[in-house]
Amino acid sequence: MRQRTITAVFFTLVMLGGIYGGYLYGGKYTFYLLFVLITAGCLWELMEMLVPKEERFRKFRKIAGSMVGLLPVMWFGSRVFLYAVFCGLSTDEEIISGFYAAHYESVAEIGVLLSLVVSMLFIVELFLAGKSPFSQIGHYLTGLFYIGIPVCFLFSITAAPDASYYPNRVLGLLLLVWTNDTGAYLFGRAFGKHKLFERISPKKTWEGTIGGGIFAVLVAYGLSFVIHDFTLRQWLALSIVAAIGSNLGDLVESMLKRSVGVKDSGTLLPGHGGLLDRFDAFIFCLPFYWLVLQLA
Amino acid sequence: MRQRTITAVFFTLVMLGGIYGGYLYGGKYTFYLLFVLITAGCLWELMEMLVPKEERFRKFRKIAGSMVGLLPVMWFGSRVFLYAVFCGLSTDEEIISGFYAAHYESVAEIGVLLSLVVSMLFIVELFLAGKSPFSQIGHYLTGLFYIGIPVCFLFSITAAPDASYYPNRVLGLLLLVWTNDTGAYLFGRAFGKHKLFERISPKKTWEGTIGGGIFAVLVAYGLSFVIHDFTLRQWLALSIVAAIGSNLGDLVESMLKRSVGVKDSGTLLPGHGGLLDRFDAFIFCLPFYWLVLQLA
Repeated sequence: MRQRTITAVFFTLVMLGGIYGGYLYGGKYTFYLLFVLITAGCLWELMEMLVPKEERFRKFRKIAGSMVGLLPVMWFGSRVFLYAVFCGLSTDEEIISGFYAAHYESVAEIGVLLSLVVSMLFIVELFLAGKSPFSQIGHYLTGLFYIGIPVCFLFSITAAPDASYYPNRVLGLLLLVWTNDTGAYLFGRAFGKHKLFERISPKKTWEGTIGGGIFAVLVAYGLSFVIHDFTLRQWLALSIVAAIGSNLGDLVESMLKRSVGVKDSGTLLPGHGGLLDRFDAFIFCLPFYWLVLQLA
Repeated sequence: MRQRTITAVFFTLVMLGGIYGGYLYGGKYTFYLLFVLITAGCLWELMEMLVPKEERFRKFRKIAGSMVGLLPVMWFGSRVFLYAVFCGLSTDEEIISGFYAAHYESVAEIGVLLSLVVSMLFIVELFLAGKSPFSQIGHYLTGLFYIGIPVCFLFSITAAPDASYYPNRVLGLLLLVWTNDTGAYLFGRAFGKHKLFERISPKKTWEGTIGGGIFAVLVAYGLSFVIHDFTLRQWLALSIVAAIGSNLGDLVESMLKRSVGVKDSGTLLPGHGGLLDRFDAFIFCLPFYWLVLQLA
């Protein structure tokens, strides 16, 4: 219990430091660094789970898979989030159109780069002489779509065309997922009766899930008075995504852990499991967060 | 032998018909249709090989994998190749900038779409209750990067900013790969001694590979007089890609077939194996074709 608390305090400090720290440039660079590191850690834990223990050149494969997943985060993040608007653009109109151009161009560049890199990895497999070469490349690409690409949506949401960075958005999106989680735990303990998805997550109940969802909506309503980056309508839409998406994200990660026979994704956070255990639900929600923000 | 010849004649007619047929709109639509069908067929054969026989809901998985791989071909193809330049653009400048915008935008759209689709597929896996859910999604994504994305480069190469379509380019790129193949076979039979990559492809020799490469360069030199869409420099660069890339592409497909224990990728072309057996080398070369055309 004491260790859990120490970890939680330390974890919170690092997160807040990354999101709000480095006041120079509005803390953009520490946030970018924080999420590059989180992504790298989650990818590493995922590869540890996916690449079979008996596969040859396992370490190389774990590194390759992490690099493939990290490529869009680093490229998109640095193009859109850090530099997009500093490329000799001066008028407001130029900055805004440059921001959108950087979005489009960087995704196209990532597509081309990844295609070439993955083709090269097929060639590398010729020489590694593994037992199931195509499945290994499948594992790298799973990391890309399960972690790497979703995190890019966070950069897209928190950077604005006027070149500013919105740290409150990051905190708000994290809070929605984590309060939903806590709410579900408390409601579930108090009223839990009907199992939600026993095969994969025997402790989750419908009562807890619904309670957590209501809690997230209330938190979003509260946040709308404090953080004005989103409208009330957007906050409520985001909380619905968090309520549904974070449960599904949890279930998907539990499904993965069950299929490979592990309890925690890692041991980085003593008493809390691995990094991926903490960020699975959040990362899973990100593309849907982005989607409802386009629509709401 | 008779069946092989009939198949070859029929195959050649279909290919030429698709590339040059439908003179209305310069044959664009039949070419697009031809390559959508080829991609779909190759993806289907790939999924047949990758999805384990004992996996539950195998047919659903084969369809899902084929759809994921086909998505960029259909989206990018229709945005860039068919419509890009017909969207109310009139002046030459508008058409050309619209063409490039469509390139960038469609890749970004595909990125977002695929991210959402793959997230949904993770949710679907919760209900399919398979044994290795993440590996199955890995298989879908392997099809995307092994077949789906490379074919997009063909659309990019053969469509030009002035809204025209260059059928001779398609034929030229195919000829480079297939003459290299034939050259390697003939040279190998006559002079083959030193094995190229015995573990995977016991019949390939260094002599055949080098002979095939020289043959491809000569063909490219000849084509440069007939097809003026590329400069001589570009033709020679393309032939070097074909000489190296098509051998690697062949080896990669052989590696796959060995790892899953099949001899041919399918039976669509009697006497010649499956579609993927015929297009593996070509598809593998496409991103590198595109790359050298940017550089040469």
